[in-house]
This record gives sequence, structure tokens and C-alpha cells, in this order.
Amino acid sequence: MAIRTVVWGENVHEQTSEVVRAIYPDGMHETIASALRQDKAFDVSTATLQQPEHGLTAARLAETDVLLWWGHAAHGEVEDTVVEAVARRVWEGMGLIVLHSGHYSKIFKRLMGTPCSLKWREAGERERAWAINRGHPIAQGVGECIEIAETEMYGEPFAVPEPMETVFVSWYEGGEVFRSGMTWQRGAGRIFYFSPGHETYPIYHNEGVRQVLRNAVHWAHNPAPAWSTVTEAPNVPVAAAREKIVQKGGRLHADGDKGLS
Amino acid sequence: MAIRTVVWGENVHEQTSEVVRAIYPDGMHETIASALRQDKAFDVSTATLQQPEHGLTAARLAETDVLLWWGHAAHGEVEDTVVEAVARRVWEGMGLIVLHSGHYSKIFKRLMGTPCSLKWREAGERERAWAINRGHPIAQGVGECIEIAETEMYGEPFAVPEPMETVFVSWYEGGEVFRSGMTWQRGAGRIFYFSPGHETYPIYHNEGVRQVLRNAVHWAHNPAPAWSTVTEAPNVPVAAAREKIVQKGGRLHADGDKGLS
Amino acid sequence: MAIRTVVWGENVHEQTSEVVRAIYPDGMHETIASALRQDKAFDVSTATLQQPEHGLTAARLAETDVLLWWGHAAHGEVEDTVVEAVARRVWEGMGLIVLHSGHYSKIFKRLMGTPCSLKWREAGERERAWAINRGHPIAQGVGECIEIAETEMYGEPFAVPEPMETVFVSWYEGGEVFRSGMTWQRGAGRIFYFSPGHETYPIYHNEGVRQVLRNAVHWAHNPAPAWSTVTEAPNVPVAAAREKIVQKGGRLHADGDKGLS
Amino acid sequence: MAIRTVVWGENVHEQTSEVVRAIYPDGMHETIASALRQDKAFDVSTATLQQPEHGLTAARLAETDVLLWWGHAAHGEVEDTVVEAVARRVWEGMGLIVLHSGHYSKIFKRLMGTPCSLKWREAGERERAWAINRGHPIAQGVGECIEIAETEMYGEPFAVPEPMETVFVSWYEGGEVFRSGMTWQRGAGRIFYFSPGHETYPIYHNEGVRQVLRNAVHWAHNPAPAWSTVTEAPNVPVAAAREKIVQKGGRLHADGDKGLS
Repeated sequence: MAIRTVVWGENVHEQTSEVVRAIYPDGMHETIASALRQDKAFDVSTATLQQPEHGLTAARLAETDVLLWWGHAAHGEVEDTVVEAVARRVWEGMGLIVLHSGHYSKIFKRLMGTPCSLKWREAGERERAWAINRGHPIAQGVGECIEIAETEMYGEPFAVPEPMETVFVSWYEGGEVFRSGMTWQRGAGRIFYFSPGHETYPIYHNEGVRQVLRNAVHWAHNPAPAWSTVTEAPNVPVAAAREKIVQKGGRLHADGDKGLS
Repeated sequence: MAIRTVVWGENVHEQTSEVVRAIYPDGMHETIASALRQDKAFDVSTATLQQPEHGLTAARLAETDVLLWWGHAAHGEVEDTVVEAVARRVWEGMGLIVLHSGHYSKIFKRLMGTPCSLKWREAGERERAWAINRGHPIAQGVGECIEIAETEMYGEPFAVPEPMETVFVSWYEGGEVFRSGMTWQRGAGRIFYFSPGHETYPIYHNEGVRQVLRNAVHWAHNPAPAWSTVTEAPNVPVAAAREKIVQKGGRLHADGDKGLS
Repeated sequence: MAIRTVVWGENVHEQTSEVVRAIYPDGMHETIASALRQDKAFDVSTATLQQPEHGLTAARLAETDVLLWWGHAAHGEVEDTVVEAVARRVWEGMGLIVLHSGHYSKIFKRLMGTPCSLKWREAGERERAWAINRGHPIAQGVGECIEIAETEMYGEPFAVPEPMETVFVSWYEGGEVFRSGMTWQRGAGRIFYFSPGHETYPIYHNEGVRQVLRNAVHWAHNPAPAWSTVTEAPNVPVAAAREKIVQKGGRLHADGDKGLS
Repeated sequence: MAIRTVVWGENVHEQTSEVVRAIYPDGMHETIASALRQDKAFDVSTATLQQPEHGLTAARLAETDVLLWWGHAAHGEVEDTVVEAVARRVWEGMGLIVLHSGHYSKIFKRLMGTPCSLKWREAGERERAWAINRGHPIAQGVGECIEIAETEMYGEPFAVPEPMETVFVSWYEGGEVFRSGMTWQRGAGRIFYFSPGHETYPIYHNEGVRQVLRNAVHWAHNPAPAWSTVTEAPNVPVAAAREKIVQKGGRLHADGDKGLS
């Protein structure tokens, strides 16, 4: 069964900047989607900020296996209810791939629990993203590193939780480094952050970057049934205990109470 | 210099439940504070929900090295602005120790980025919290396990991110298990969650539990200067780059822009 | 393409103990293999201690995607050269599933770098292995826990490195707990340890346990090409540097030296 | 009480290379020790390969809180029995700081369980070690990065297990990156690897590097009593179980057997 993949794009600078439109005439989300469509295992669609519920209704999220997120200028315009719905789907098992300036998106900060801050410089300098674990599924097919001719520098410290795995670390011409590819697990959902992708450079036309995006969708896909009860805190009554016990001690709750937890 | 420690208590059930008041006549926060006051390295005070800003003004947080958090009935009454202020202090380096039902507090969920859900049963059953790493600072002085005669069961799955270290795992009479002591790092701040502590049992009078609280304060204390810029995303201009580079390529930002990041 | 899976069995107690032979008349490795053969995606064979090179020649290892390891009485009889060959294949990308008393095998201790010690009791008590992350691939299809009527108790502390993920934690009738399912990554290889499986009880006939074995083979399989250079420390000459540099400073090595590292 | 710190130096190139002797006339171990002696909390001594048992007798190791290890040309001359004794002390709680070419030492490979391979180039190029977590104890006092004028390049992939924390990442003039400071926990012992330190450059005279060494000794010191039973696998008899159970099922072991585990 196809991996149902949605590319979410903010779609703002493509409308307002000649520089960006020249590189991504159909929008960045469509260029990202075109990379994924090279893999026939994926069923790829797009969604944008401007659509009702930003194109991410509960029904659509329920049918999404992996979501890619690119945003920059309009993080604040994303509705909190949509952010919560996406977070819940990640906990249930949807994969999430956060791209570049998405480090400051509401959804990424929500799932990390940290500021997700970093240093930056928009100078078109050279970047080289080195694969840390050659055997990692996300690093397949790109050799020892990905060369990016012109990039925005993102520099450490990057205020995120220690990752499950560091997949890429980037070198910059101006002297900085950045952990440019990292993974985390949140509930049943896998999260991958990948930093290359500033909108004024043709980075999503880079073959190595496009390969990483495809690899990441495969990696982030969790085929298990959705963990639909992940937000519940159920009471286990004495009568349902796996070992026979008797009620003892003081109580706040009477039998059958929903409880505070 | 003393470790400035604040015990935050919700202080609700102590006022409304005869059962709880009988065990904690001065409030749970005072009993927890009494455990800490046995260590002369700590300067211990308390704060409660009912105080202005819940007793956690910016000025007080700035002078707090380690914060302990116990809440249960009134998580929803904690002001979001206070939650954000506490989160920021954790990122800057304040230690945070979250106790028992605090698993569902706004601050813990904020820092974990997950539902923090679990199973529970209030039946006064026996719990045995086993030390996983005998050499861990938080497990010192309690032997191979802590026996708790009557407890509320908290059962897996506990929906938190994979911890930095699993320090305790608990066995319950009714047949469940729980990762009852775990650590995480968020920014410069260390976080410890410890599950024993239901208000209808005298758990904070247990010597092993009290030892763990003292150990945890020492462990969570980060003596480094506050990482006050942890939420900032500074631009590094071309002229300030460590290696000489020249501006190239398309740009969104003009020189001196504050930028989007 | 089929996942080429080898079940390695020590095959000692099956020959010397009536109790064990009654439960595993064809050897434990054959019963384990029978669980895997229920999945047509696997190409399953077995190997035993008594075969030349313990059935694990370099040629066979090179064609093995996932290796399962059960040993107990004769860890010391496993040749060090075979242990090193297996370790190397794990680093290259072969999955390794270590079962029960294999915690004390040479290969597991080699890859962990720790004593891998634990507590134990052979009393036929009840065990309940709880799934920690319901969404983890290895925990699929077994519900919230696996009940094992008679088991050998393995108790904490289990002296292994902090895992990548804790997948199962076990409860024992006698009062102990154990992290009974854990994962680690070593080089390109994935490692899963699963503790149920003492030879005097019919544990590998338990459907939940058999499901976990199948799940674990899928999880441990890394389809990437073998990372054949994982043990090499190559020199990158000045002329081959990605950025133009000039030779400076003192040197130990002349051009073309193989070097010390 | 002072932190008893031993600096172990291979002391080979200092004897054979004019270049190295000019920089480290008393041996590299003495220069490293001189950095530590600036902190009065440490009781610092040195040991070298050429001494009986390489200066690391069981008695001395028992009285060592933190061991620093620098070796390069003669890893193979270190006796396996000494390596095992050091590993055991780490598991018991001794801190271990492995420096530069020590990545290929027997003791580091023993504790990591991986090849510990990397890329290298001895060209006197510039290195900049960036602090990843500004609040980490090991990164205190060095600012956002350490500049090293001439260094040996160590490049990824570095085949070690995913660390507990990545503390430094290095940028190199020739275009590579390296996770130059990482931590791991093994048993009760803390391990820190720090890559700067090639013998043909005056790196251990660099103030930032010297600060890191002092910080690392503080961080690696575990004041808990030695976990002296860490390698034991004790039987817990039925009569000693915390919960009352009765012996059931088949058995390999009779009462009182030492057992296989």
C-alpha cells in the first residue's frame, strides 16, 4: 500500500518574492512533492497555509502517513488547533519531516519542548552535509556528503533535545557547523529535521537533497495501526488488575470515577 | 553557595480532603520541603497555586536553582504565562523535579512535547521502585529498591520521550510496571520525573523517597551561569563570520534586518 | 527479496537435559526457526555451536541479514575469531537479536562494552512483559503485554548501556522488574535483546513471544549495502581535501604513509 | 576530598620525535597534568606505558577517581589485563577521559563495542570546536567555540555508539566536520572523548583546551561508592524473593548452585 504523503508549504515568499518565484515557480511544496513523486511507493499531495484549516483537516490527517513541513514567514498564522491536531497524529504514529526554517514552526517547537533557536546568515555560502552513520536509511545513496553550492548558514547551538540519532552534520564556508539531520521519536511517531532548504537558493533541486527527502519518508513511515488511545489516562479497576489485589488505604476517587489520573 | 530550591505545591486536596490533611497537615509542599531541609546545602522555600503568580514571579524564578512541582487537581488553573516563564528558566539552566501526578501538569507536558499519559489505580497496593543504575547520583543511599507499602499504581505505557537515563522502574502488586524515575535534558536544564507520591498515602514520609528527593536536587542543579540567550536566533553578518566569505546569491534580508530566522 | 535469517543455537542442554529435550525435541534453534518460518518474507536457516566455525563462516555471515543468538552453558566455547567476525558483520549492517541467557554471550558483551550482568532465579514464576511504546514495530500484535506462565526471573540492575529504546519491561511474581526488550545501534547494525526464553519452560512456543521474534527480524533488517569500510581509518591527503588547503606545521607522517590513524 | 586524577601518557613520540619533544619537553602527560594542576580540587599524578603494569596497578586504579588517556603509536603494547582492569574500574564508577588518538586505544574500543574508526589528515589546518550545549558543565568558560590554529583533521564518520550528549562539533579548514566532544555512561562510569590533541602541534597549551580538560574531570567524577558488584550475576533464591512464591516447573539448577546465570 502506498505511503500517503502530504507536503505542507507555507506558500508566502513564492507569492511575494521574485527571487523565490524564479526558483520555485509552482511553489516550494510542488518542487518538494516532485522529488517524492520519483518514488512510486508514495502517494503524494500538497497542502498550503491559505487553504481552509491550512489543508490539514482532521479527516485528511487521519489518512496521512507522513507529513513534510516547510514554513518561514508566517509561522504565527498557523492556527493552534491545527498544530494540536498534527501533534496528536504524530503521537499516534504519523511521520513528520520538518524542513529548514520549519525549525521555528509551532509544530516543531510543540513537539520538541525547547526553543529550537539557532544562528543564521543569508550569504549564499557553501555547505557540505556529512553523513554520520553511513548505514542509516536516511543517508542511503548520497555518498559521504551532500555539497550545496549556495546556502543559508544555520549554526550551533541548535536548542533541541538530544536526538535519537545524528544523521548529518553540516560544514559552512563561513566557519560554522550544524547538526543538519536529526531524528526523534514522539509517541508512535518518528520525526526527522533536515536543515538545507532556504528559499532563495535552488536547494530542493539538488539531487542529494531530493534523495534524502525520499529516504526520510520511508524512514518516518510507521505502518502500525494508529495508537489512537495515546492521549488517554485510563483507570484500571481493582477487579481488572492482572494480579488479585484488595482495595486498601485512603481514596480520593470512588469506584467508577473518571478521576484526575 | 546554597542551592536555592523551591517546592511548588498545588495545595488543594490538603484543604478539601480529610484523608490528605491527616497525612500532610501543613500541606504536601511543607513535607517535601522538610525532606530537603535535612540537607544543609539547600536553601529551601515553598510556593503554592493560590499565591499571586502562583508564587513564581520572574524575580523569584531568576533566583531559583531547582524547582520541585507537585500538582494534581488544578493543573488547568496554572496560568500559561507562569508555565512559559518556568519553561524558559529550565532552558536557561534551572533544574526541575516533577512529582507523581505532575506528569499531567502543563509544565511537564510543555517540556516533553508528548501526552504524558499513563494508566492508574488508586487501591493502596504495594510498590517497589528498583534502582536501574546503582551508580547514578539520584539512586545513592536507597539500596537496591524502595519499598512503598501503599501506593497509587501508575502503569505503562507512559507517553514521554525516551529518557536520557532510566533511574528507577517500579513493580506493583496488581501486576503492572512503570518507569518511575527518568531524566531528560532540555536546553541547559535537567529534568527528573519521580512517580511515587499520591496524596492519600504517607509516601513523602518514606525515608527512601526523601533521600531520592535530596539526591535529585543535587543532580538537577546546574551551577553554570544562566543561558540567557537560549531563545534567541541571532544573525551572524558576513563581516563577523569566522572565515572570510563574500555575499552571494539571492536574498530575502537586507543588511541589518532582524530577519525571520 | 527474502530477509536471510540465521538462528544460532548452542544446542547443549537439549542434548544433556531430559527436561529441555521434552520441550524442544528438535533443539531450541529449530523451535525458534519455526516461529520465523511462519513469515514468508524470511529465508530461515539454523547454525549450532558444534558445527565447524559454529556454522558461522565468513561466507555465510556475508549472506546473513539478521542473526538470532541463543546460548547459555557454553559461551566460553565460542571461538573468539567467530565472535569478531559476527561483530564486524553487525557494524556493517547485519541485525542481531540476542535471546535470554545470550546476555552473557561473548558477542553481546563485545558489542555492549559492559558486564551485561543481572540477577536471576529459576523458580517457574509468572512474568508479564509490558509494551512500553505501543507504536514500536517490535511490539506490534501482542497487545499491552505478554503473559508467560512460567519463567526464569531476570532482575535489575542489568548492566548494559542506556538503550536507544526500551520496548518491553517485565513484571515478575517474586517482586522484581527487568527491561526485557531493548534496542541499540552499533555501526550500521541494529541490536535487539529480548529476555524471555529459559530452556526449561516452553517459552518459544508462546504465541506472543513468537510474534516478537518475527517483528524483531523485520526491525533489525537493514537493507542498505554493507558498510564494508566501517573498520578503516583512511587518510585524506591535502590534495584530496574538499576545500583548498596547504600543508603546515610539524608532521609525523610523510606523504603516502598508511599512518597510525 | 580531592578528585584523584591520573593522566596516562604513552610517552613514545616524545622520546623519538624532535618535533614532539620541542613542544612537550616533559612529555605530553606532564603538560596535560599541568592543566589539571591549575585546579586545586584535583590531586594529579601521571602514569606511562613504560612503567610496570603501565603504571596502572589494581591498587592504584582503586584509588583513582578519573583517568585521562593519551596514546597513539603503541596501542598494541598495552597489556590486555590492564585494559580489563581499567574497564572494570570504569564500570565501578571511575571517570575516563579519552584524548585524540586514544580513539583507537584498546580501552576505548573495549568500552564502545564499535570500531571507533574515522578519517584523518595531518596538515596543520585550522579547527574550530563549537559548543553544542552552552549549559553543559564540560563547555563552561570557553565561549561559543575553541579556535585551534593548527590541528590534525579527524573526520566523520566516527564509528562510535550514539552518545549520551554531543558537547562539541568541530569545523576544519579542509572541509570536514567531527563530533569532537561526546559523552557516554558505562555502568557507574562516565566517559568523555575529546578529539583535539595531535602531538605535533601545541594543542595542550591552548587555554580553551586546558579548560575543557579541567571541566571534564569535574564532570566525570562520580563520588558514589564503587559499584563493586557490577560484574556479578547473583542468584536470588525463592526464600529471598521480595514476594512469596513457590518453586514450580522444570529446573537446571539445584538449590545453592552458582549457576550459569
